Amino acid sequence: MAAAAAVTLARRLLRSGPRAGLRGAGGREPGAAPRRAIGHGRVAVELDGSTGVAVMKMENPPVNSLSLDFLTEFVISLEKLENDRSCRGVILTSGAPKIFSAGLDIMEMYGKSTEHYAEFWRAVQEMWLRLYQSNLVTIAAINGSSPAGGCLMAMSCDYRILAENPKYSIGLNETQLGIVAPFWFKDTMVNTIGNRATERSLQLGLLYSPAEAHKIGLVDQLVPEEKIQSTAAAVMSQWLAIPDHARQITKSMMRKPTVDRLLAHRESDIQNFVSFISKDSIQKSLQMYMEMLKQRRG
Amino acid sequence: MAAAAAVTLARRLLRSGPRAGLRGAGGREPGAAPRRAIGHGRVAVELDGSTGVAVMKMENPPVNSLSLDFLTEFVISLEKLENDRSCRGVILTSGAPKIFSAGLDIMEMYGKSTEHYAEFWRAVQEMWLRLYQSNLVTIAAINGSSPAGGCLMAMSCDYRILAENPKYSIGLNETQLGIVAPFWFKDTMVNTIGNRATERSLQLGLLYSPAEAHKIGLVDQLVPEEKIQSTAAAVMSQWLAIPDHARQITKSMMRKPTVDRLLAHRESDIQNFVSFISKDSIQKSLQMYMEMLKQRRG
Amino acid sequence: MAAAAAVTLARRLLRSGPRAGLRGAGGREPGAAPRRAIGHGRVAVELDGSTGVAVMKMENPPVNSLSLDFLTEFVISLEKLENDRSCRGVILTSGAPKIFSAGLDIMEMYGKSTEHYAEFWRAVQEMWLRLYQSNLVTIAAINGSSPAGGCLMAMSCDYRILAENPKYSIGLNETQLGIVAPFWFKDTMVNTIGNRATERSLQLGLLYSPAEAHKIGLVDQLVPEEKIQSTAAAVMSQWLAIPDHARQITKSMMRKPTVDRLLAHRESDIQNFVSFISKDSIQKSLQMYMEMLKQRRG
Repeated sequence: MAAAAAVTLARRLLRSGPRAGLRGAGGREPGAAPRRAIGHGRVAVELDGSTGVAVMKMENPPVNSLSLDFLTEFVISLEKLENDRSCRGVILTSGAPKIFSAGLDIMEMYGKSTEHYAEFWRAVQEMWLRLYQSNLVTIAAINGSSPAGGCLMAMSCDYRILAENPKYSIGLNETQLGIVAPFWFKDTMVNTIGNRATERSLQLGLLYSPAEAHKIGLVDQLVPEEKIQSTAAAVMSQWLAIPDHARQITKSMMRKPTVDRLLAHRESDIQNFVSFISKDSIQKSLQMYMEMLKQRRG
Repeated sequence: MAAAAAVTLARRLLRSGPRAGLRGAGGREPGAAPRRAIGHGRVAVELDGSTGVAVMKMENPPVNSLSLDFLTEFVISLEKLENDRSCRGVILTSGAPKIFSAGLDIMEMYGKSTEHYAEFWRAVQEMWLRLYQSNLVTIAAINGSSPAGGCLMAMSCDYRILAENPKYSIGLNETQLGIVAPFWFKDTMVNTIGNRATERSLQLGLLYSPAEAHKIGLVDQLVPEEKIQSTAAAVMSQWLAIPDHARQITKSMMRKPTVDRLLAHRESDIQNFVSFISKDSIQKSLQMYMEMLKQRRG
Repeated sequence: MAAAAAVTLARRLLRSGPRAGLRGAGGREPGAAPRRAIGHGRVAVELDGSTGVAVMKMENPPVNSLSLDFLTEFVISLEKLENDRSCRGVILTSGAPKIFSAGLDIMEMYGKSTEHYAEFWRAVQEMWLRLYQSNLVTIAAINGSSPAGGCLMAMSCDYRILAENPKYSIGLNETQLGIVAPFWFKDTMVNTIGNRATERSLQLGLLYSPAEAHKIGLVDQLVPEEKIQSTAAAVMSQWLAIPDHARQITKSMMRKPTVDRLLAHRESDIQNFVSFISKDSIQKSLQMYMEMLKQRRG
């Protein structure tokens, strides 16, 4: 299954043209060039060879929507870091102002073919599978709002630091849009904040303020916005003090059962998504939501 | 999961049958009669057609014991509301002073035939199965003490508001009577307050004060007693702001595994109850408990 | 499997000579001698026949390491109490200053044969299996630091009281030594403090101060060091107010699924341990750790 997904992703990369190529200087050997930019257009990656810490900055304007192109680049960038022996940890953050990620790109879910929906959903799954069980230490430096799929990305990291700006919010708000968070979003949230808080969060589609998110454990730490990157770096060095091998086995022991649940139902999960999103009522909900967004911006 | 949930929903819809017929005044269309009384003797139900919110008031004096008659009426009333398209949410509360529900009626468990015990236990299961996976938004307005089965009913709702009267208490106190909460009481509590708090609660048969119950998450909110109904109505309108379909599928996704565990073992659970409750030692414990209650009242 | 382990333990007892014999006065009949010492050399046990409460004091200087000999005596002592009808509860505490237990004895894991590793690991499993599902009320009076296996013992009790000395710490710190806590250590911790806190604890190998341990629920209560035994006795009498039979069935209902997971994988868990601990890299890590300990003491 993972292989099939990789093939799909590779195909997408080939299709996506020059933006997908490597950018910046620097070879594969650590030490020579301490900072290397190895990202793509929508995901800027900078790896510090001296510390082994990479920063992945999401740059998909205006709100870092998880489009098919973005997800493809994200997975490839992450896979490169995983395979780079000089890299031990990654800080995931946003290059956009006020937003970490707005979540799944509604344009990918509206008015497209069922084939497109299936390809998109497989890419969403692949992003989560890679991030949730990454061998790297993964720290989310959440410097903006993080609804739905953005919240999923944050929850999939090992540690979450949120800028304590009261205008920011985080949560799985799918039901507010008339859609349903899939079971593995739910599992990831249960693993983070427990069953009862998840039940209430998901049914009501709650978006939490930084103070509330910290109180229920949806994020681990709040810091003033200007300190988020330095705090992430400091926390990362704590995590890197632990021998990689023992930490990786421990992480896998904790997360593998949750990953295996999706792997066992991956194709049916895609089919569920496709048939759900193809419904007239859902398409109509999405249309209304998009019009509301347009009016807000206008 | 989404598909499974949809099937469950469809089945529930098909199952209505003759028992599901409306009784009392008012047609099926909302708006015509804004308030309709559709309850039975022991469960007074009033449905506000303009809001879609029903209030189910337990009226089984003196302490709302869950007798076989009461449970039967409760399930029928709830089923009627489920099948009434004008109803979207239900507030569960008590018409008795100082008590929400005292839990299972001991008279049904003492000195009866094994057939009676089996029938009674099946009715207890049915009450929980209906309430825990109700398609309606269910809010418990807990206006009195709520031990044992009363606590189970409260935990089976979507949200719990408790009057902050320090004389009230709530919890699964079965071990204090020398009996054991069944596994699905336990599962419901673990889903509400987590494993460790449940382990301690159940082993010690703890009854919590409102402040303690709120602290461990057994209830979601404390309010002065006179504000409990208005708070329940306000919370209900928050929940009704969410599209029903998305909320219902989400609720089912969260609760179906717990429900399925009982469904898979329903008959053996009945047999366990019957053989446990038929034991001389248990019958003796219940007798002593009843005598203690009599002395207290006398 | 349990039978095989018992045979192994019995063999070890026969081998361990005079220290393993009964010491102290007192017969098997309760009442005659209200306090009886029935422990072995490394585990001093005193049973108060009037209350039914035993105190098991770990006495394996200097740091109550869980050596093969210690584990063998521990299991036999606990089994004796389980089979003694006058005993209803046990308080587990330490006779060593400043340390509850330092956890698994590294000497048993370094430079030995694979047969020895297997025998040792089976004894560790047996200790946990007996303690975690003991029919007795088990209270940990944690009067010192309690890392790794020491923390496992504490978590396996029904209730944990920790002396609030800021020099003490408790936690599963295996990853800090480059090793990995086995899945049933993890399960026991998840059952105690939930999934998220466990994930972070285990990956970072965190040792918590008393205040932190209390905050995350790793211990239930903090008391001044001089009050730890009296508090344990007071808490015990609360637990003994509950009828044994109902409490035991409840405890088994809560813990059996976790125990069954180890029983289903007991042999492969032993093989995993043996092959992991036999690795050159792990042996080297342990060697470095032992040298560090020597330098600290020197």
